[in-house]
Amino acid sequence: MKRIIIASTSTLYEGSYLEYLLPTLKTHFKGINKILFIPYARPGGISHDDYTKKVNEAFAKIDIAVKGIHEFENPVEALQQAKGIFTGGGNTFLLVTQLYKIGIIETLEKVVKNGTPYLGTSAGSNICGLTMGTTNDMPIVYPPSFNTLAFVPFNINPHYLDPIEGSTHMGETRETRINEFHYFNSQPVLGLREGSWLEVNDSKITLKGALPARLFKQNQEAVELETGADLSNLK
Amino acid sequence: MKRIIIASTSTLYEGSYLEYLLPTLKTHFKGINKILFIPYARPGGISHDDYTKKVNEAFAKIDIAVKGIHEFENPVEALQQAKGIFTGGGNTFLLVTQLYKIGIIETLEKVVKNGTPYLGTSAGSNICGLTMGTTNDMPIVYPPSFNTLAFVPFNINPHYLDPIEGSTHMGETRETRINEFHYFNSQPVLGLREGSWLEVNDSKITLKGALPARLFKQNQEAVELETGADLSNLK
Repeated sequence: MKRIIIASTSTLYEGSYLEYLLPTLKTHFKGINKILFIPYARPGGISHDDYTKKVNEAFAKIDIAVKGIHEFENPVEALQQAKGIFTGGGNTFLLVTQLYKIGIIETLEKVVKNGTPYLGTSAGSNICGLTMGTTNDMPIVYPPSFNTLAFVPFNINPHYLDPIEGSTHMGETRETRINEFHYFNSQPVLGLREGSWLEVNDSKITLKGALPARLFKQNQEAVELETGADLSNLK
Repeated sequence: MKRIIIASTSTLYEGSYLEYLLPTLKTHFKGINKILFIPYARPGGISHDDYTKKVNEAFAKIDIAVKGIHEFENPVEALQQAKGIFTGGGNTFLLVTQLYKIGIIETLEKVVKNGTPYLGTSAGSNICGLTMGTTNDMPIVYPPSFNTLAFVPFNINPHYLDPIEGSTHMGETRETRINEFHYFNSQPVLGLREGSWLEVNDSKITLKGALPARLFKQNQEAVELETGADLSNLK
């Protein structure tokens, strides 16, 4: 019985951290007064302690306490005992490297697939797909593998960005990059715009939030999915 | 005696392929009537043959013929015998994977360090740095290593993009991404804007083109370098 929220971003423009998601999270983590936070995507700027504090302040508004996984001596046990889990954003290459290096990727996969409610934002959402191959991040460290948690049987592109009208920049658009991914990989890719998220309830996957999402399938034209769309059969 | 051009992009907005570089290339490849082209960065869309044809058409304007390395039975020999080499753009993860897989990365490094004139654009420029860790590309395939050719003792960020004024997008700016790189890597990173390139003449490295470049050093504020700047001592 999987229960997962996969959000494009933690923060909307001019909004505060996790603000737009709090009503959803109140339901998602109902009956849970403490969750475990995975801060490993954060490359620097703020410490894991300060990052956890920021998350704590946001979750305090819905009466949930937060403890960082880095505070535990045994992170595997921490995951096994967690009532809820949140992986925050940062750099996906770093996050995936850390999950493998610290040796918690298998346990994280197992407990969430067994029903521990999970929230991912940005990098924490990227890892919910089959691979991290559609991240937007810079490869600042070399992960032992691009394979991720496969909570959904496709790939996620968070912070999905439409081509900027009138741009004179010659770098690839996001759509071009995802099409390039499909020359070498067959799984669908869901471009989640900021403000959208997926709700996974066991085998049911639903698009939520204000905006449509953009779905890319190998050898097919990309299509727009309206909010409320059922993605349960996407693979 | 290294002789290398490291260009941010092959093509300027509203320009044709390699157009703005042709006067420079005429001097760079002086006395050479045939160069070897490495098309391996291209993930699809056009075949290696068609990509090579496009390069051929551009170089024909300065009376240089082009042959693709994929046309040779023995690519190592092709590199050893080449009078000049050009690696074009596409996806850096793919390019680096192919260079390792086909087994030509060491030979490419050796012949260019020994004096075969080289041109790189975009992905072909990324690989001129110490690592590919500052590419903008999507990780569509998993390379055996992020280490690249080290023609210069720092990293390149091609297609360098300034923050877009008034943007409401919450994804990281290019500057933020490069700063994140510096939490884990000590080498300087040169952000080359489209229209700029580096000219390497043995140990002398000079910034060329119309625009300033942005230099990022670990634990320091980024600075702007004017065209003509001498980067010979940068490391």
